[in-house]
Amino acid sequence: TRSIKLAVIPGDGIGIEVVEQGLRVLEAAVAGTDVRIDPTTFDLGAARWHRTGETLTDGDLEAIRGHDAILLGAIGDPSVPSGVLERGLLLKLRFSLDQYVNLRPAKLYQGVTSPLANPGNIDFVVVREGTEGPYVGNGGAIRVGTPHEVANEVSVNTAFGVERVVRDAFSRAAARERKHLTLVHKHNVLVNAGHLWRRTVERVNAEFPDVTTDYLHVDAATIFLTTNPSRFDVIVTDNLFGDILTDQAAAIVGGIGLAASANINADRTAPSMFEPVHGSAPDIAGTGKADPTATVASVKLLLDHLGLVDEAARVEAAIAADLAERGDRVRSTTEVGSDLVARLNG
Amino acid sequence: TRSIKLAVIPGDGIGIEVVEQGLRVLEAAVAGTDVRIDPTTFDLGAARWHRTGETLTDGDLEAIRGHDAILLGAIGDPSVPSGVLERGLLLKLRFSLDQYVNLRPAKLYQGVTSPLANPGNIDFVVVREGTEGPYVGNGGAIRVGTPHEVANEVSVNTAFGVERVVRDAFSRAAARERKHLTLVHKHNVLVNAGHLWRRTVERVNAEFPDVTTDYLHVDAATIFLTTNPSRFDVIVTDNLFGDILTDQAAAIVGGIGLAASANINADRTAPSMFEPVHGSAPDIAGTGKADPTATVASVKLLLDHLGLVDEAARVEAAIAADLAERGDRVRSTTEVGSDLVARLNG
Ligand SMILES: CC(C)[C@H](C(=O)O)[C@@H](O)C(=O)O
Ligand SMILES: CC(C)[C@H](C(=O)O)[C@@H](O)C(=O)O
Repeated sequence: TRSIKLAVIPGDGIGIEVVEQGLRVLEAAVAGTDVRIDPTTFDLGAARWHRTGETLTDGDLEAIRGHDAILLGAIGDPSVPSGVLERGLLLKLRFSLDQYVNLRPAKLYQGVTSPLANPGNIDFVVVREGTEGPYVGNGGAIRVGTPHEVANEVSVNTAFGVERVVRDAFSRAAARERKHLTLVHKHNVLVNAGHLWRRTVERVNAEFPDVTTDYLHVDAATIFLTTNPSRFDVIVTDNLFGDILTDQAAAIVGGIGLAASANINADRTAPSMFEPVHGSAPDIAGTGKADPTATVASVKLLLDHLGLVDEAARVEAAIAADLAERGDRVRSTTEVGSDLVARLNG
Repeated sequence: TRSIKLAVIPGDGIGIEVVEQGLRVLEAAVAGTDVRIDPTTFDLGAARWHRTGETLTDGDLEAIRGHDAILLGAIGDPSVPSGVLERGLLLKLRFSLDQYVNLRPAKLYQGVTSPLANPGNIDFVVVREGTEGPYVGNGGAIRVGTPHEVANEVSVNTAFGVERVVRDAFSRAAARERKHLTLVHKHNVLVNAGHLWRRTVERVNAEFPDVTTDYLHVDAATIFLTTNPSRFDVIVTDNLFGDILTDQAAAIVGGIGLAASANINADRTAPSMFEPVHGSAPDIAGTGKADPTATVASVKLLLDHLGLVDEAARVEAAIAADLAERGDRVRSTTEVGSDLVARLNG
């Protein structure tokens, strides 16, 4: 028996509801195999912060480190000042656990209506850098609240950090049918960071001669995501551009209710984390309206990461079949979970 | 007779072709009034740089300063290293002339097909900050080309700079029917800059009590631009987010072939600059395929800025009528210009 130690962080709002369904599907996916899921729930998020003032302690982090993977729901609540949980918990996890590959697939499934008039065949993945860029928290402000305030934000980009994520993106592109990698940046303005990214893509390309590449400025990329998204195969980009583009990518393939993500430590020196792209949606929390599909699709990525590729493929097939047949039916969070579990059991 | 001293910078590629049509329309718009256009063409762009190594000299800048406004085509050519002309010429103009309001309207005209299946009634303007943020050029790199390279980019945001553009955006919102302002930023990650923007919007709102406001993270903004763009009235945002969102905004209302922009020094201490959002499009340069509509729409903004509101309205009406009736006809750059001129004369 192989036991998977899973750290579960339901978090806030609908995070709690969707993670519950994600876990049910995960259990169903490995039922009848020699894999056993061994989940530990971590009380992290707004409630914990209100109670204790803590976001993520060293002790939490050490406990999480002892796991094989992390399943996270969503973090954030309007009652907590902006940035506290995002930086003190979510980004702290991504950074501390060195999850440098933030993987976000965008695929338009049959049965899903795109807001684009002519979406074409959309099937790409974004490899978003996860541990550098403007997300490093190296900003600061002086004379805050006065007419002389200056607030700076620093984007930090290293050869080490860029190269490892670019290499990961190339290897993903090499394994795909079209074998095409698009670098997205803004090197005509952010010349220092941009040229580092560009040179790195050119150099690493030599290791993957089968992969073709092109380059788009981030502004132009938003246009192509609107007018010709089927041109994309693999996109590699920095942390902030990746944040922006993956929400747009989610929108064109049916919304963030369906968008999965993986925060991968590809060196496996710490656990990777799987989470839906959507937030905690306090407006619908507790109503059973949240679609758990994004979390289940993240469970699919989790299974892939653990090498359980058959199980991952079965989860993907269940999602695809559910989407193809869901039509206009309104189902609760639990009902969607049950339907997916039934497909896996059936 | 009122003489308008106009600095004309055709620039590179299709910039030269579209500016020619923009000027024809400008002349036609003021024909029969006491306004006279007095254009001076400036040789700036790739050709000048290749010949002299210069992008924009102090002398050029002083000469341009003596004008009432600037009409710019497009800057950039693949033969020039990325960043040289963008930073040395285009951004240098925006920064040196303190053009802090980068105004970019997005309106879906009748007769124009949006790539969105259900675009609704799209009619908003983006007020993009033009002189701060990650565009300041305060980055740098060490150990370039080695495995130890570190490349930083600094976003600089000042109370002074944010407040003046936010106030401009509020006054534009107050003059519109819906009187709604949306701040777009990413204050849950870029906490220093983001909170400065947020506090500033809250404070300046007191001066414009009729204007309602809301806030969106930049990633969420890309979703709403895809799923519900009619929710927007005025967007105010920083230089980089504005760059990204205005290309996406252009895409949903028919493409950058139609998208106008104004770089406004609202204190009128230096000339403002009017330019299409599109680039120099070297792939179609010289073929007569470029659509000059974006430049003509920028001429409309120029007329507004100079207080020639009737003339501006007539140009806008000509554009609207042309778009409503163009159908699938393929016309050359000059033909579109001629048709617009004919409407103004007719
Ligand atoms: C909540 C926020 C910090 C986060 C991010 O910006 O990375 C989210 O938008 C995401 O994309 O996972
Ligand atoms: C050419 C480039 C420097 C410019 C910008 O980033 O501002 C362009 O994209 C624009 O939007 O006007």
